[in-house]
Amino acid sequence: MPRIELESIEQTNRTGYPAGHAAIVKQRWYRRLGPPSGLSDFGVSHVVLKPGAASSHRHWHEDEDEFVVMLAGEAVLVEDGARTLLHCGDMAAFPKGDPNGHHLLNQSGDDCVFVVFGRPPTGDCHYPDIDLLWSGGAYRHKDGSSY
Amino acid sequence: MPRIELESIEQTNRTGYPAGHAAIVKQRWYRRLGPPSGLSDFGVSHVVLKPGAASSHRHWHEDEDEFVVMLAGEAVLVEDGARTLLHCGDMAAFPKGDPNGHHLLNQSGDDCVFVVFGRPPTGDCHYPDIDLLWSGGAYRHKDGSSY
Repeated sequence: MPRIELESIEQTNRTGYPAGHAAIVKQRWYRRLGPPSGLSDFGVSHVVLKPGAASSHRHWHEDEDEFVVMLAGEAVLVEDGARTLLHCGDMAAFPKGDPNGHHLLNQSGDDCVFVVFGRPPTGDCHYPDIDLLWSGGAYRHKDGSSY
Repeated sequence: MPRIELESIEQTNRTGYPAGHAAIVKQRWYRRLGPPSGLSDFGVSHVVLKPGAASSHRHWHEDEDEFVVMLAGEAVLVEDGARTLLHCGDMAAFPKGDPNGHHLLNQSGDDCVFVVFGRPPTGDCHYPDIDLLWSGGAYRHKDGSSY
């Protein structure tokens, strides 16, 4: 059955962020759709941001493209020097290697829902606003030392 | 600017189908979003099906996953032995190698809009209902001969 049955897929607010950086995504509730659907070419996550939540810390990937499709509610797309309001049907692309840190914020009073596509990160991921770096399969301080 | 500006991207109803099989997608109007956005990990197309149009002939890919996100209107997802109505926010996954021919039909009186993700086909693509095969980078008769 190709149609995605969301209710049958686990929803979680887990994060791998170090404890001191985790609060921002505590109300980010997501479902990974790729594995239960048998997909492996790219990852797909269905994400609900509760009011006040962020999709992630502002970041950019060296080696992985990302693409977002808004499904409901309102999100603020924050990037270098710009903030853009996104609504249902809006889309945004984040090509790999573009050092434009980005994330989505739900600053509304209602849930916001989007789907995000990308491959699992094998290259480094940079977080311009905080002392965080994804490198070698782990979160590190910007100087490369472990958390 | 990560937000996709649809109006700035060419919309086309081109098809590579041989002439005798092209009518079904004449009112499929699509925009390829990946190249103008600088994405290369996967392809993304924004598709408008006018009333009566199909997304493609029913098909399945040997080597490429596909994923559809409905944005507006109503589409009938046709697969082996099943028809499922899709609406805004519905999603469907088509894992590579699953020999379940599928397509979307707009049998409503209004436009239907969706986004579809996948990699450019390098493997064969099979069309169970008609004398068509994608193989070796070209459309062929099922016996492998050229159109």
